[in-house]
Amino acid sequence: MNAEIIAIGTEILFGEIVDTNSAYMASELAKLGIEVHWVSKVGDHPDRLYETIDRAWRRADVTITSGGLGPTSDDLTRESVARVMGEEMEVQDDLLRHLEGIFAGRGGGMPATNIKQATLIPSAEAISNPMGTAPGWWVDRGGHVIVCTPGPPRELERMWTYEIAPKLRQINPDVAIVTRTLKTFGISEGGLDEMLTPLFQSENPELGIYSKQDGIHLRAIATAGTESEAARLIEPMESEIRSIVGDDAVWGVDDETPESQVAAFLAERGETLAVMENFTGGLLASTLAEIPESRGFLRGGIVLFGDEQLEDHGVDAALVAEHDAASGPVAEAMARAARRTFGADYGISVTGNVTRPTPTSGPLGTSHVGFALRRGATSTAGRYPTNLRRIRARAVTHALLEFLRHASEGPPRQGGRRRMFGR
Amino acid sequence: MNAEIIAIGTEILFGEIVDTNSAYMASELAKLGIEVHWVSKVGDHPDRLYETIDRAWRRADVTITSGGLGPTSDDLTRESVARVMGEEMEVQDDLLRHLEGIFAGRGGGMPATNIKQATLIPSAEAISNPMGTAPGWWVDRGGHVIVCTPGPPRELERMWTYEIAPKLRQINPDVAIVTRTLKTFGISEGGLDEMLTPLFQSENPELGIYSKQDGIHLRAIATAGTESEAARLIEPMESEIRSIVGDDAVWGVDDETPESQVAAFLAERGETLAVMENFTGGLLASTLAEIPESRGFLRGGIVLFGDEQLEDHGVDAALVAEHDAASGPVAEAMARAARRTFGADYGISVTGNVTRPTPTSGPLGTSHVGFALRRGATSTAGRYPTNLRRIRARAVTHALLEFLRHASEGPPRQGGRRRMFGR
Repeated sequence: MNAEIIAIGTEILFGEIVDTNSAYMASELAKLGIEVHWVSKVGDHPDRLYETIDRAWRRADVTITSGGLGPTSDDLTRESVARVMGEEMEVQDDLLRHLEGIFAGRGGGMPATNIKQATLIPSAEAISNPMGTAPGWWVDRGGHVIVCTPGPPRELERMWTYEIAPKLRQINPDVAIVTRTLKTFGISEGGLDEMLTPLFQSENPELGIYSKQDGIHLRAIATAGTESEAARLIEPMESEIRSIVGDDAVWGVDDETPESQVAAFLAERGETLAVMENFTGGLLASTLAEIPESRGFLRGGIVLFGDEQLEDHGVDAALVAEHDAASGPVAEAMARAARRTFGADYGISVTGNVTRPTPTSGPLGTSHVGFALRRGATSTAGRYPTNLRRIRARAVTHALLEFLRHASEGPPRQGGRRRMFGR
Repeated sequence: MNAEIIAIGTEILFGEIVDTNSAYMASELAKLGIEVHWVSKVGDHPDRLYETIDRAWRRADVTITSGGLGPTSDDLTRESVARVMGEEMEVQDDLLRHLEGIFAGRGGGMPATNIKQATLIPSAEAISNPMGTAPGWWVDRGGHVIVCTPGPPRELERMWTYEIAPKLRQINPDVAIVTRTLKTFGISEGGLDEMLTPLFQSENPELGIYSKQDGIHLRAIATAGTESEAARLIEPMESEIRSIVGDDAVWGVDDETPESQVAAFLAERGETLAVMENFTGGLLASTLAEIPESRGFLRGGIVLFGDEQLEDHGVDAALVAEHDAASGPVAEAMARAARRTFGADYGISVTGNVTRPTPTSGPLGTSHVGFALRRGATSTAGRYPTNLRRIRARAVTHALLEFLRHASEGPPRQGGRRRMFGR
């Protein structure tokens, strides 16, 4: 079963609103065994909208639109679908009463324009939208389907989970697709490609390799009659990958992130963390703070730039003078200072040289990440020759993954340079 | 003149790579007076790719593809364009020598698969790509054009600026489109809509209104024969908007951001800033640190969570006990402590209550932003009932825009709550 996604709206077309819905739905459809063949974006223009929906209806088993369900004259999705189906929109009493209730609850009357949000065509049924005023449409002619969803992601995603996905599962019950992503660290894409060559020949599960900011991802996709069958197809491939690349190289799976892994590591031990950073400017702290549980383990962070400020915050001025602020020894001292300042169990630091090369700091773009651990401090360096925003993000990823490696086991390693982050 | 953009690649289709190229090109095409009517995404599938490019060729004046110019058998853009044009791809000696040179420069031989990056069809000329191995294609039959660009944004954007935009300007010389965005703060979308009703009737320039994280944006788009004529069309509308809404409500224009405005404010005065934040977890500091000039004005930041840590960092414990950490008085004390700790001219703080309501902190989601200014400290509160990630981002925007307002002029205001951020 295949699908076409249509993202509707002139703002979407011009990229003024980033279309995250299409990617969300494509990935959700894959889990239901429905393959997306086409994604189209179209503005709020009656003829082009009609033409786009009409083509989708003719070529795709399932067409899913997002957007254009608002009350204004620019919101033309309902009108266009009615035209494609050759049917008339009619106001539904129950939908109208519900809509009037929403406006009454907000303490006002319903504007006349909103009445079109209470319409259906004979082939459509309404999909309830507890997060907004626009119900979705489920149009079905003998299993050939058009689904109209609202544009705001929180409305769409709620509607998808509780209404649309269950209905799609009913019309496509016999295919389940399961994916498994292994996230690796420390081996280059080319290296993994070579190590796993025979596995890339497999058709089900199919294995893909993707270079991401947090390392190289390996993703297996299996198709079967049920989810558990598909999962069983993946298991031996996952075991084989882990035995070939080494379990140590796989730092996470699926939705896990470097920060979620650090959070899990610390939560499990009931331990706490503090950070000190310069050129990442607070990104290390704020990345960790994004984790809902961060209040439990993140004691605090210090962002500073100048050498004299390092001294004010517990880093020996002589060390800075001898090694430069962007150096392994200073990274270690910063990590220790962070731990001490906030009374935490661990300290992580990032210090880097992104504006000028110095004799000891290494070339431009080199950063040093430091770790204050129970057994002492250690540090490692990475170089990321790309723009400053991406350098910052990579340095943070590097710091978090190296922290996990150092804190969990093994002797401290000094000055290791991770090639994978050098891309 | 209209255009269709085609983003090519299975990873693009499934949203695994976010397609930023389409939005970039749509906005660049608008500046050239070329209107994007369609955006399509299509996977690396020969027939669907052919069908998509063929349809674009038939319906659009200009078709622009991105992606699928790599060396692998999945990279099918060239083959598909050749099929649409009914022409044969031929290896070009000069392109081949150039390509071999690139590989020689990298210290290796050219893999045989890359030879297809040195091909053209008779209707195509090569567009040079100094950032990668794949040249673009410019296919032209009597002004009816297909442009093939590489997928990596830095390759595309460089090629666009130096090669493609000048060529497109030649084939569409008589239309220029100029846009002007005014970014406002402190007036609701509905309020602006009412104040500016007559202006929204204007056709050239056309005025649009957009609710964004940093306030409400008003965007005027004018079309004329030249850029300067189009700009002249916009000037009176801009003046009228400013006189109606008040110059104070417009905090920036076009690409300006709250952080760039704070940077400009401080740079102009040669003054410095320090920050202290809790639930934003470093986001205030890292937002400012994204500004390239931040090293000149951002002295440092402190991220902390617990009450006892506030005391360690210079906030009076009695104040916290009396008012709660999430309160205006503590926000002011934090701003003063940040300024003092880092020896800066100004301090900004964000403190908030996003996990539990307390008698004094206001309802859940309330944040307090504090400012240590030359004339004393002040604070203001905002409430953002949405998810935590967005609350953080809004609190940072709020802090930066209120800082500008407080630091630049007028008496300190206390406890003002900005409705615009409450959406």
